[in-house]
Amino acid sequence: MNIKMIAFILSRMLSVESLLLLLPAVVALIYGEETGYWFLIVAAALFVISIIFGRKKPTHTKIYTKEGMIIVSAAWVLWSAIGALPMCLSGDIPNYIDAFFETVSGFTTTGSTILTNIESMPKCILFWRGFTHWVGGMGVLVFVLMLNTLDRNNSMHLMRAEMPGPEKDKLVPTAKQTARILYGIYLVLTLILIVLLLFGGMNLFDSIIHAFSTAGTGGYSNYNASVGYFNSAYIEWVLTIFMALFGVNFNLYFLILIREYRPIIKNEELKMYIGIILGASIMIAVNIKEIYGSVSFREAIFQVVSMITTTGFVSTDYNVWPMFSKTILLALIFTGACASSTGGGVKVSRLILMIKSIRKRIKQLIHPHSVNVIRMNGKKVSIETISMVKTYFLAYILIFLLSILVVSLDNFEFGTIFSAVLTALGNTGPIIDPIDATGSFAGFSPLSKIVLSLDMLAGRLEIFPFLMLFTLPAWHRKF
Amino acid sequence: MNIKMIAFILSRMLSVESLLLLLPAVVALIYGEETGYWFLIVAAALFVISIIFGRKKPTHTKIYTKEGMIIVSAAWVLWSAIGALPMCLSGDIPNYIDAFFETVSGFTTTGSTILTNIESMPKCILFWRGFTHWVGGMGVLVFVLMLNTLDRNNSMHLMRAEMPGPEKDKLVPTAKQTARILYGIYLVLTLILIVLLLFGGMNLFDSIIHAFSTAGTGGYSNYNASVGYFNSAYIEWVLTIFMALFGVNFNLYFLILIREYRPIIKNEELKMYIGIILGASIMIAVNIKEIYGSVSFREAIFQVVSMITTTGFVSTDYNVWPMFSKTILLALIFTGACASSTGGGVKVSRLILMIKSIRKRIKQLIHPHSVNVIRMNGKKVSIETISMVKTYFLAYILIFLLSILVVSLDNFEFGTIFSAVLTALGNTGPIIDPIDATGSFAGFSPLSKIVLSLDMLAGRLEIFPFLMLFTLPAWHRKF
Repeated sequence: MNIKMIAFILSRMLSVESLLLLLPAVVALIYGEETGYWFLIVAAALFVISIIFGRKKPTHTKIYTKEGMIIVSAAWVLWSAIGALPMCLSGDIPNYIDAFFETVSGFTTTGSTILTNIESMPKCILFWRGFTHWVGGMGVLVFVLMLNTLDRNNSMHLMRAEMPGPEKDKLVPTAKQTARILYGIYLVLTLILIVLLLFGGMNLFDSIIHAFSTAGTGGYSNYNASVGYFNSAYIEWVLTIFMALFGVNFNLYFLILIREYRPIIKNEELKMYIGIILGASIMIAVNIKEIYGSVSFREAIFQVVSMITTTGFVSTDYNVWPMFSKTILLALIFTGACASSTGGGVKVSRLILMIKSIRKRIKQLIHPHSVNVIRMNGKKVSIETISMVKTYFLAYILIFLLSILVVSLDNFEFGTIFSAVLTALGNTGPIIDPIDATGSFAGFSPLSKIVLSLDMLAGRLEIFPFLMLFTLPAWHRKF
Repeated sequence: MNIKMIAFILSRMLSVESLLLLLPAVVALIYGEETGYWFLIVAAALFVISIIFGRKKPTHTKIYTKEGMIIVSAAWVLWSAIGALPMCLSGDIPNYIDAFFETVSGFTTTGSTILTNIESMPKCILFWRGFTHWVGGMGVLVFVLMLNTLDRNNSMHLMRAEMPGPEKDKLVPTAKQTARILYGIYLVLTLILIVLLLFGGMNLFDSIIHAFSTAGTGGYSNYNASVGYFNSAYIEWVLTIFMALFGVNFNLYFLILIREYRPIIKNEELKMYIGIILGASIMIAVNIKEIYGSVSFREAIFQVVSMITTTGFVSTDYNVWPMFSKTILLALIFTGACASSTGGGVKVSRLILMIKSIRKRIKQLIHPHSVNVIRMNGKKVSIETISMVKTYFLAYILIFLLSILVVSLDNFEFGTIFSAVLTALGNTGPIIDPIDATGSFAGFSPLSKIVLSLDMLAGRLEIFPFLMLFTLPAWHRKF
């Protein structure tokens, strides 16, 4: 393993984070907040450290998939660990575990918070939380790639480790170009959303935060009542549409740009994604009729889209909904959005492949000698890919069960524990049946907060790159 | 598909059930209970019907795996549907859906009950419930095979469909011989248990019922307080040991008979099974210290063994235990016992194979060109078997999620819904955080009772044979 190259790339990545930390410092300057100094201090210190470690490039620069996965996992952990420092040092979130949880939740676009009164936080911290969503949504590594600081030969290994979904295609021959196209689409959609939110009467700060949060499918709001604060049908519809858009495979937007519409119409994942959204919304709208007195499709589809895209915005208190509606929401967190989107969860395409492999098994039992090939969007899916999807799912469920066991030490209701782990692993954020009315994670034990933070990272990195980081000490032995 | 042969074998199987229905009639005679007449009437009617349909053997007798699976699934549904009739017709369980649920729960060795006062039932019904556990534990088809009523050429296809676990070995060349050896071991262990329970002060009726229930890893007791009724450390220890024994792969007992001890000592599933039991018991014993004042290993290991073997006996009210202990119990229901035992659940051997395939995936990422073979007990496991284990698990989880969605319409707590579905699919029986103090399923809606009944059947038949029954109408079309 090329340790020197790993250290070199990581130090490059840290220097990028030191630049990002200047943005909340600027926000602090505008609003005159002292917390801004801490962002400046951490940024400066980080810059110095990254320069020291990254001052000379190793002679041997070749890296492979395993190095790529280690770099990506380590980068996410380091970015979160360092991004938590200003909030902790300033005393706004005095406990470091809490600050780490909050930052991991930001970068992984989960959106779970340990804050009990969000509105009391300085604006620079609220900005930083939202901005972590935006960077984390498309990927911290893809972000660094875009900035042209890395080798072109190595970058595809890095990109693969971070991109969600069962199959990893690059849009164009080089990873850097792919990264730029993706961030270009991402930026344009975000800007359009900011403008639309301004039209709805939001102020600039609120619309930037909510646009960041929507784009990254994160879920942090700067209000305790989340989107419910605005109490505006227009804003809810705009956010519903944009959350849904950010949950779509970004390759499809690239296809629109190059005017290839046929594969979009035939895309099985997109059809299923839209189908699930509409089906779930109708079922919930009918189910919650008894509570609102009339069929409330708007409330239903907002929460459905918020959950399936794993954003986690809240427009109304869904905890008063019947258990059937809440269980649908849990199922949507589990399902997650489309592959290669900014959303989390198991991903609709994996679900399709799993259902197809169950069908294949039944067919094989009926006709043992027939040849059964699994196809997706008309193309044959390799046995290797199917096997990886299944193994991913096994690992997902086993990590899920182990996490539930540890978090259950906190002795909350089973539904609370279950949804806390589900929402962490699915990078969604809010909890069904929370501990108290704030919906905050503040009441969980430090151990649970650490486990949930690890779950968020495992979920965002799609488990295996993250698991590899843990097996690192054993590599020289059995592996 | 050989429909005639399917009908022929099914009618043979129904004639066997008509004989079994005479046993509770005899019990009714002994205790002078009128309900016995209904067992007699149903038995007689069933015998006539089975003679009419099975009077002549088809000329073309060959069947394959798919017919075997259809026969097995149909047999389990029919045995349950008919076995429910006497209890319903006699008015003891007036609602047919309830009676069906109770009989399915019996044959599948689940042990969930819709009764709220078990002790008020006639003895012949209590006997029938216990006896369904005993027959269902080893398999209704294996039972029929043992009685020599089926063709030797076809019987292996039937046996395979019913035997639990990832790999299906027959002990000796013919299925009939295998069935006789298995039932021989089963019968001897049951008789030893009856004698040991009599020593503990149980009366003959109670000891037969509890031995049936233990042997089948079912969980029906004839007392509302389950095993807690006896309040005897001796009885609890005897049952703990025998539950654990019936959760072991029966092939190992055959190896003891032929004095081959080496594969037993090396058996990975056995080691893991014992390890989980001890580990979980110690964790729970420590966790419940605050409730009992001292470390209560007996209560802990009784409940651990009861859950992992999917028996479901209860010796103390574990619902007052902390959530950590309850979550461990849920995890054990999920894990289940060893393959080729009478226990349910996912099975320890599948869990081992799943963990090994996750390890294999990590190794592949680290050394892409290395050859990784999964071994179990020193033998190479085929890629086909691994793939089947994974697909089984996918189907298990997806059926689990769909069932939770439907059952959530009843609007109980999430933990209640979750454990109801888990316990049905895992054939375990009792519920964590039940609706009321009786722990009965009486309060669930008819729809939930039907879904849970189907889950029990799917769980007992390890999903695919049962799924095939549902795809039957579509066979002439897409399959």
